[in-house]
Amino acid sequence: MTKHDDTRMSVSGSHKGYVTGSRPDLRVPVRRVHLTDGNAVTLYDTSGPYTDPDIPTDVRRGLPPLRKDWIAERRPGDGGSVTQLAYARRGQITPEMEFAAIRENVAPEFVRDEIAAGRAVLPVNVNHPESEPMVIGKNFLVKVNANIGNSAVTSSIEEEVEKMTWATRWGADTVMDLSTGRDIHTTREWVLRNSPVPVGTVPIYQALEKTGGRAEELSWEIYRDTVVEQAEQGVDYMTVHAGVLLRYIPLTARRKTGIVSRGGSIMAAWCLAHHRESFLYTHFAELCEILRAYDITFSLGDGLRPGSIADANDAAQFAELRTLAELNRVAKSHDVQTMIEGPGHVPMHKIKENVDLQQELCEEAPFYTLGPLTTDIAPGYDHITSGIGAAMIAWWGTAMLCYVTPKEHLGLPDRDDVKTGVITYKIAAHAADLAKGHPGAQVWDDALSDARFEFRWEDQFNLALDPDTARSFHDETLPAEPAKTAHFCSMCGPKFCSMKISQAVMKKYGPDASEELSEEEIEAGMLAKSREFAEAGNRVYLPLAD
Amino acid sequence: MTKHDDTRMSVSGSHKGYVTGSRPDLRVPVRRVHLTDGNAVTLYDTSGPYTDPDIPTDVRRGLPPLRKDWIAERRPGDGGSVTQLAYARRGQITPEMEFAAIRENVAPEFVRDEIAAGRAVLPVNVNHPESEPMVIGKNFLVKVNANIGNSAVTSSIEEEVEKMTWATRWGADTVMDLSTGRDIHTTREWVLRNSPVPVGTVPIYQALEKTGGRAEELSWEIYRDTVVEQAEQGVDYMTVHAGVLLRYIPLTARRKTGIVSRGGSIMAAWCLAHHRESFLYTHFAELCEILRAYDITFSLGDGLRPGSIADANDAAQFAELRTLAELNRVAKSHDVQTMIEGPGHVPMHKIKENVDLQQELCEEAPFYTLGPLTTDIAPGYDHITSGIGAAMIAWWGTAMLCYVTPKEHLGLPDRDDVKTGVITYKIAAHAADLAKGHPGAQVWDDALSDARFEFRWEDQFNLALDPDTARSFHDETLPAEPAKTAHFCSMCGPKFCSMKISQAVMKKYGPDASEELSEEEIEAGMLAKSREFAEAGNRVYLPLAD
Repeated sequence: MTKHDDTRMSVSGSHKGYVTGSRPDLRVPVRRVHLTDGNAVTLYDTSGPYTDPDIPTDVRRGLPPLRKDWIAERRPGDGGSVTQLAYARRGQITPEMEFAAIRENVAPEFVRDEIAAGRAVLPVNVNHPESEPMVIGKNFLVKVNANIGNSAVTSSIEEEVEKMTWATRWGADTVMDLSTGRDIHTTREWVLRNSPVPVGTVPIYQALEKTGGRAEELSWEIYRDTVVEQAEQGVDYMTVHAGVLLRYIPLTARRKTGIVSRGGSIMAAWCLAHHRESFLYTHFAELCEILRAYDITFSLGDGLRPGSIADANDAAQFAELRTLAELNRVAKSHDVQTMIEGPGHVPMHKIKENVDLQQELCEEAPFYTLGPLTTDIAPGYDHITSGIGAAMIAWWGTAMLCYVTPKEHLGLPDRDDVKTGVITYKIAAHAADLAKGHPGAQVWDDALSDARFEFRWEDQFNLALDPDTARSFHDETLPAEPAKTAHFCSMCGPKFCSMKISQAVMKKYGPDASEELSEEEIEAGMLAKSREFAEAGNRVYLPLAD
Repeated sequence: MTKHDDTRMSVSGSHKGYVTGSRPDLRVPVRRVHLTDGNAVTLYDTSGPYTDPDIPTDVRRGLPPLRKDWIAERRPGDGGSVTQLAYARRGQITPEMEFAAIRENVAPEFVRDEIAAGRAVLPVNVNHPESEPMVIGKNFLVKVNANIGNSAVTSSIEEEVEKMTWATRWGADTVMDLSTGRDIHTTREWVLRNSPVPVGTVPIYQALEKTGGRAEELSWEIYRDTVVEQAEQGVDYMTVHAGVLLRYIPLTARRKTGIVSRGGSIMAAWCLAHHRESFLYTHFAELCEILRAYDITFSLGDGLRPGSIADANDAAQFAELRTLAELNRVAKSHDVQTMIEGPGHVPMHKIKENVDLQQELCEEAPFYTLGPLTTDIAPGYDHITSGIGAAMIAWWGTAMLCYVTPKEHLGLPDRDDVKTGVITYKIAAHAADLAKGHPGAQVWDDALSDARFEFRWEDQFNLALDPDTARSFHDETLPAEPAKTAHFCSMCGPKFCSMKISQAVMKKYGPDASEELSEEEIEAGMLAKSREFAEAGNRVYLPLAD
């Protein structure tokens, strides 16, 4: 096996399947887990052709252009818009909408209506035909984004493509290429041509490379050219920090951690250097026209997000949010799909206020939050400090979660960190899907719990979010193959397992226990029940598989 | 360095300190982090004498009997009770209460009053003089328990003592010895003599060993003798599954995962075998008298807790909770301190109902919950699925969290798993302390955020919950020593760090920006501000340390 062969196989115990839609070229990938009891569980699949043994993949050739024909068939309406928002507003269902609807187990009309209302986005640049359409909105499954991208300090193009493949294998719904170092254009090209999920960027990073890192030398022209360059390559959504207004910057002065968003600090530096509103804000309508032409989705960045517990929900953060709400309306008036980015560092009791205010001000536009981290004291474990906040904010209405890895605040994530970050955030997203009562979400938990109760170890592993880790942890304590079908586990030992004692049928002890009986009758009944229990082997639950 | 020398040193960057109380033998340990800016942060310390280089420790001799004199000085009142609850009800403050008060930064009277009201417990067996007193209640810092204990399948006594020391080093406030295998008595003896924190057990496990694993052969006599044996050794709190009533067992019949508590399934098997209420329930008053004599705290176990998302908050769970509330009142009438155990597996939207109901029914007795896990789909990552639920339930009123390790459902935790579990739960507990507005909790976050903003890397590491991991993650990307004081970090590279761009003083852009000015005045003012900014080096925040 070569170095990265493990990203080019099926997920352990799963099989690639497809659900065909209303036309033969509309084939929606799924992950099927075949269970030893003859059933199968069908799961959402973000891993692309890499996990399909029938599709050869070659990073130098890129993925097949899945959406090529759909894009060619597009006929812009009177307004000239080819965006999903424009189609939705015209009442039309695109193949992309149907594709996303099949993934979500909902009607295509519902996807269309949510997009038309601005409550959901479907990020698909016309120049990224390789991507498998997906929808982001609070009435759909909660999505997870994984950040990749090299920096001036470390990492190579190949590594970043590998991280992208690895992230989507474990469930990343989108990736953002945040490269800031050398080869920024080439890295992005490789990522796009090989990515089965929408790709986001922060164009100001590349624009700043063009000025040699001098924020004050940035201009609308440099920025615009960068956006067009990235649009041509196929970037599906772009973070734009257009809400950093000059008058908001002093509001950060008394903060504990000032401005922690890279894009935010660049724009703040520009605003202060020129003492004007930024070109992102003053040229926002022109920017909308560019994004509209390619059907790129706005991700309106929160450049003034809090960087510490102390700064959460302060005047600077909420002032910017009001401006993002204004820009959301402008973008919509140009038929441009829009989501809104959110914090950051927020203690648990201040999380709900964030999502409630965003939903109210931004007319329910999808909220896309980074964590939030619920405490600052655990560098090295910020996937966990933020996973807590992510689950909560998603339950309360966030549509997509940007992951945080264990290396947050400390260094660049490597391959293992990417996986840990994605799995942690898939947990947060799924916990939120359950809490929101998303139809079908609990099927997965139920299948795994059934397998656990019936000691179907292999099924339990194969249904796990990360089958490899579940299997290896089990094998550390009980490495022998028979242990996987044994009716006990290593926590309790062979004699002592509560699952063993309590397995299965209690039906005979039904709800008729409350009948009025004489004391003698009760005594006799109890004795009979007691003998019955002894005869059945003194087990609370009878093993099903014995 | 020998194998386990890393548990016998100060935590990296921290120094052991002591705060002396009202008498010279009342010395409360603290962890002090001395910062490079001359300040120091004082943190709660659970690690015991092991992290004090001036105290020699020897696992064969045990720890010094810190509370020996305090116990000898005790004078039972008219009722004969020596429990902390009895003292508190008589209005007396014990040295233990003062010790715990200093740790919590509150008045001793407050600790006394919370114990007297049954809202807090201070678990201290008179035969465990080695333990450093601590208090568990919703109006104090959220506490974390770590389970240790060997099983029939694996692990040795030495390993378990080592896990105990390791767990308290990283912040475990109590440990439970859940051994079920050979040498159960000896393992516990070693753990108790070396533990600086209260030790809990589940006596039914050892009682079952005495019947060769046959639940139906258990009896009050066997159980009572086991409790006395453990009481004599010094166990500080005991889990008792006295709420598993015969009529509740059929309520579990239609569950997805039946009875998953070991203690619960043993008692259910006994109840069904005899068709009577269990000896734990029928002899509860006698049990209270034993626990009272040693000042052992009840932890009333939830033997019918849900083992899957599907079973959360069901009739069986809440029926048992009502019985635990009844037993709580009985225990209190015997002057026995009591806490109540809680689930388990609960989706986020059903968590608050649990803690609200427990608080209402059990007259605010401390709630002690296992997680809860917020989804079943991630074996291998259940420290995270449960860390999410733990943070939330603690915010809403749980007093102590029982940790869950990555090996949950799969195998026995090793040393690394114990650390991961403890750190994850310290994060959950601290996030809850912040959300509850616990006085002083945010000081830690603020100190770390200040260090982060001012690029004091060493301070950031030393203040971290896990300094070793924070430092090593940083060193992976930027291993050179100068990098730790460099004004950038590896995520953004030298030119690009938002912290660098945005560091420090914005005071000149104060709140007077809203004055009414003419357009010319504004234009001139803007130009002046722009020049001022350029002259200051085009930085949003000026580096403090330059």
